[in-house]
Amino acid sequence: MYEMSDTIPSRIDRLRELMAHEGITMYMIPDSDPHDSEYVGDHFKCREYMSGFTGSNGTLIVMRDMAGLWTDGRYFIQAERELEGSGITLFKMGEPDTPTIREFIRRNIHDGDVFAVDGRMITAKDGREYGETVRDCGGGIRADVDLVSRIWTTRPAMSAEPVTVISDEITGESVQSKISRVRDKMREHRSDAYVLSGLDDIMWLLNIRGRDIECTPVALSYVYMTMDETCLFLQDAAVTPEAKAHFDRNDISVLPYESFHEILKNKMPAEGKAENNGNTGHFRIMADLKATNYSVYDIIRSNVVDITNPTAEMEAVRNEVQMKNIREVYVRDSAVLTRFLYFVKTAMSRGEDLDEYSIAMKLDEMRSHIPGFMELSFPTISAYGANAAMMHYEATEDSHSRLEPEGMYLVDSGGQYLGGTTDVTRTIAVGPVTEEMKRDFTLVAVGMLRLADAVFLEGCTGRNLDILARGELWKRGVDYKCGTGHGVGYMLGVHTGPQGIRYRYVADRAEAVLKTGMTVSDEPGVYIEGRYGIRTENILEIRDVCVNSDGHFMGFAHLTYVPIDRDLIDTRYMEPHDIELLNSYHAAVRSNILPLIEDENEREWLIRATEAV
Amino acid sequence: MYEMSDTIPSRIDRLRELMAHEGITMYMIPDSDPHDSEYVGDHFKCREYMSGFTGSNGTLIVMRDMAGLWTDGRYFIQAERELEGSGITLFKMGEPDTPTIREFIRRNIHDGDVFAVDGRMITAKDGREYGETVRDCGGGIRADVDLVSRIWTTRPAMSAEPVTVISDEITGESVQSKISRVRDKMREHRSDAYVLSGLDDIMWLLNIRGRDIECTPVALSYVYMTMDETCLFLQDAAVTPEAKAHFDRNDISVLPYESFHEILKNKMPAEGKAENNGNTGHFRIMADLKATNYSVYDIIRSNVVDITNPTAEMEAVRNEVQMKNIREVYVRDSAVLTRFLYFVKTAMSRGEDLDEYSIAMKLDEMRSHIPGFMELSFPTISAYGANAAMMHYEATEDSHSRLEPEGMYLVDSGGQYLGGTTDVTRTIAVGPVTEEMKRDFTLVAVGMLRLADAVFLEGCTGRNLDILARGELWKRGVDYKCGTGHGVGYMLGVHTGPQGIRYRYVADRAEAVLKTGMTVSDEPGVYIEGRYGIRTENILEIRDVCVNSDGHFMGFAHLTYVPIDRDLIDTRYMEPHDIELLNSYHAAVRSNILPLIEDENEREWLIRATEAV
Repeated sequence: MYEMSDTIPSRIDRLRELMAHEGITMYMIPDSDPHDSEYVGDHFKCREYMSGFTGSNGTLIVMRDMAGLWTDGRYFIQAERELEGSGITLFKMGEPDTPTIREFIRRNIHDGDVFAVDGRMITAKDGREYGETVRDCGGGIRADVDLVSRIWTTRPAMSAEPVTVISDEITGESVQSKISRVRDKMREHRSDAYVLSGLDDIMWLLNIRGRDIECTPVALSYVYMTMDETCLFLQDAAVTPEAKAHFDRNDISVLPYESFHEILKNKMPAEGKAENNGNTGHFRIMADLKATNYSVYDIIRSNVVDITNPTAEMEAVRNEVQMKNIREVYVRDSAVLTRFLYFVKTAMSRGEDLDEYSIAMKLDEMRSHIPGFMELSFPTISAYGANAAMMHYEATEDSHSRLEPEGMYLVDSGGQYLGGTTDVTRTIAVGPVTEEMKRDFTLVAVGMLRLADAVFLEGCTGRNLDILARGELWKRGVDYKCGTGHGVGYMLGVHTGPQGIRYRYVADRAEAVLKTGMTVSDEPGVYIEGRYGIRTENILEIRDVCVNSDGHFMGFAHLTYVPIDRDLIDTRYMEPHDIELLNSYHAAVRSNILPLIEDENEREWLIRATEAV
Repeated sequence: MYEMSDTIPSRIDRLRELMAHEGITMYMIPDSDPHDSEYVGDHFKCREYMSGFTGSNGTLIVMRDMAGLWTDGRYFIQAERELEGSGITLFKMGEPDTPTIREFIRRNIHDGDVFAVDGRMITAKDGREYGETVRDCGGGIRADVDLVSRIWTTRPAMSAEPVTVISDEITGESVQSKISRVRDKMREHRSDAYVLSGLDDIMWLLNIRGRDIECTPVALSYVYMTMDETCLFLQDAAVTPEAKAHFDRNDISVLPYESFHEILKNKMPAEGKAENNGNTGHFRIMADLKATNYSVYDIIRSNVVDITNPTAEMEAVRNEVQMKNIREVYVRDSAVLTRFLYFVKTAMSRGEDLDEYSIAMKLDEMRSHIPGFMELSFPTISAYGANAAMMHYEATEDSHSRLEPEGMYLVDSGGQYLGGTTDVTRTIAVGPVTEEMKRDFTLVAVGMLRLADAVFLEGCTGRNLDILARGELWKRGVDYKCGTGHGVGYMLGVHTGPQGIRYRYVADRAEAVLKTGMTVSDEPGVYIEGRYGIRTENILEIRDVCVNSDGHFMGFAHLTYVPIDRDLIDTRYMEPHDIELLNSYHAAVRSNILPLIEDENEREWLIRATEAV
């Protein structure tokens, strides 16, 4: 596909030529699109094109005589492999000796140097922080430079798939009601306007979905709202007659996606005065600078009110209609994964020949028959043995392992359905396992079950609870280098916020208070490079427990119902209460899943797999 | 002592007359002194004088037709009793229906109203926030008004006790070394000067102690530092020849306490220029606005750099000399409390007549014989039965209960010693107890032991760990309305920061990352109004556990070694690991304390009290 000479080092060389020509000392290539999406369309995969690293999180920095890629703990092993021979140094984020990107800038930018980045591809928050650091060092920042387009001549066009309208029976809330709640927030912040660039937020607000990013049913778009108008910026090809009617019914003006920056500039008051909203002062425009790109920020900077997106907080709390749909979707999704685990365990015990890639394809195919299936919610992780130590390993047709009849196999997968987004991980024994594997597997299961068993008072965030999942591992000097849990979207991104289960304190980072109706993943693990990886992941919903004079107590309920491999459980590492939790979880798996399984062999296996230990 | 007419309502009436005369709508009387001390000298007890409420935390607000007192959960029961008949409404802070003081101001201040407070008695942070709220409502703020002095004609003079110098063998670090570390922080914040008004911070920095506040060995003082001078503001009577020599040796200029505000004004540059510190810009003065009073802030406001006091962070981490001293002090203090518990339990079992007050006196007397004893670290809480439900109950000569031969008795006490400050609580059975009491006591003990057993990674704060102490109570819908743990000073305030073990997320409130060498209390409880109170409190030190490729793991070690009453333990509420924790703690109590006890009966009792369950 590429010319022989089109290697990563040659692309970096060409970038250095352009940098020299433009007088740029340091060029940054972030991993995002203009909407701060976690996964991005092919058009936006500049960092992957320039570095060869395919993970979802990574930032490339190029200088005349060095190039470095920053990524997080999920990708250390994968990045090491993919960067081999590229001449790019891996910077392992969060390790004690690794400089942060800001620290790196501070050490390497000097008087008169120029730092450059495509301002559409970084958030306003990051852009402002980098800019501050650069200027502190006596350098200058340019955010209007896109050098990669000049190198990447075969760059794919932006996706422009048609949008779909989602009915109120699925969303549980009309567009009018959502817009009205958002306007209440605008009043609260005494704002005249609101700019939304997060795609999940826009899809949620307008009860639509798109197909512009793989695994995330979103359409490339922006929204600009005032107290009496709502403007949606969408590519022409995305607007179907059905969508047009929906927008008309809801008084939403549709404008071309490409004209967003120009129109936004025109919306900004020349005089800095507003007549709206009883607000006699300055024109105020709300935006979440953590989720708005730096180029948009540049337009609204004199008028911006920096907030946490109220839409993200609203989207995070499910209404009863959504919860009912989710519970049904999860049971169906769990039944398929259960049948898949039966298949793998049985085939392996019979000595059949399986490989990571083909069984991932099989699972994806099984899932595609579930009613309401739209697409996968992320590429299935199907990892045998040491491959499972790479948290986001992806087996491909060209590069995958065979399953040997020993050790463990990990599968992390999920789907986008009409009525919910799933995400589930199980690790199973596919042959004899060591005592150490059983110990680690048991401690991970204990952590998952203890977190799900927590009861907590209103006012807690994920940081209060993380230790329930990690505590037993920490007592043995073991940690996993990622969060314990993330929010899960509703027919949207599978990794969402604002809620999360993490442990590390970060000064000035807002944490989301946990609320009834939120969903969150619970996925502790053990990852031993070169040997094995274990992860057990359920999705939990937050529910009310009781309200009394001591406060409002909340807890979790499992949404995922898939057996936890009893072949890997060693009860010596469990307290009696942990054993009760496992047994009662398995009883619930049996009662929820058995009715959905017809095959007699599968039924018998499920009954055995959910017996009390 | 007072005239018949000198009642709380009559004092409030006189305040209202003065308010009317000054045109003040709302007058606030905080509970502090100019140094934001937790406990204050008698001279500063304005809120107590005006309201009759004697707790350590409370704010009185008076308007023409209402008066309200805000206090926290530790004091709800006590405040209800003490405010009876005063005409003052109790506002229970943290309860869902209670407005915060800011919300109350927002609802009750209207256009043209005047809000007034003595600006020396509130922190700059609070003063700025209240001022902002008042102005938002169209009101004005006056911070130069001290109306209470005009009512309180018998107000005691300020204390002015002589200061003592503490040797480096006790502090483990010289004044020069500390000043040099503080100047490094000044450089880091590019500051020319530093104002310190927290008394604990000043005592720590200058290796001195005072006697101006009961239970807290501090002297009323301020410090003003630049890169080449250190000015200490102290009352003349406090400066002994020994202290004078110490200050001279360390190049510390001593100036009169009363002249601090005037001299600070003169230190502020007229031109706003500094020549110090390689800093060519504005004159910058560091101060912690959470711990600096509003009147001082008023002087430095154009030049202030708001920081978290570096001295507080430095004071919180004990060096090895301090840790060695503390461990010795705690064992001696624990031995005395152990002997006291023996005395109470034995006397009660013999049917002797005991009362809360006289046995508190006895404990205080026993403690006073411990080598190095200086004074109590807080008034001993000696509470039988329902009185123990009041977290900070104090039995007095005139008002106390007799111990009946049933139920539980709680004692929370501590001392200030040369070499450490102690704080310990135990609850014991003094006769037959109910199943419910045993369950609650056991759950509290389990919480205390589990928190102490935690292992955690660098980057955790108390919020990560709190659920280990509260978790089993929360599962039963029970909470205690206070933090789980506070920092403990070193021959300083018994409740210090910045570290703490709390659960509630408060946006924008900085949390202190836990560090090796910090000490912290671990004191879960159950408080049932009108029935009983349980608290078990140990002080823990943070120690290194291991450093490996997964990170730097830390944990706790107990400093307190006092039996946990086995008569109140019900093992049905404990996991096997909880039982191990209790038994190994008791084994450590026995091995640490037995060598310090001579009396044969006490020894026999201790051996029984520390037997494995």
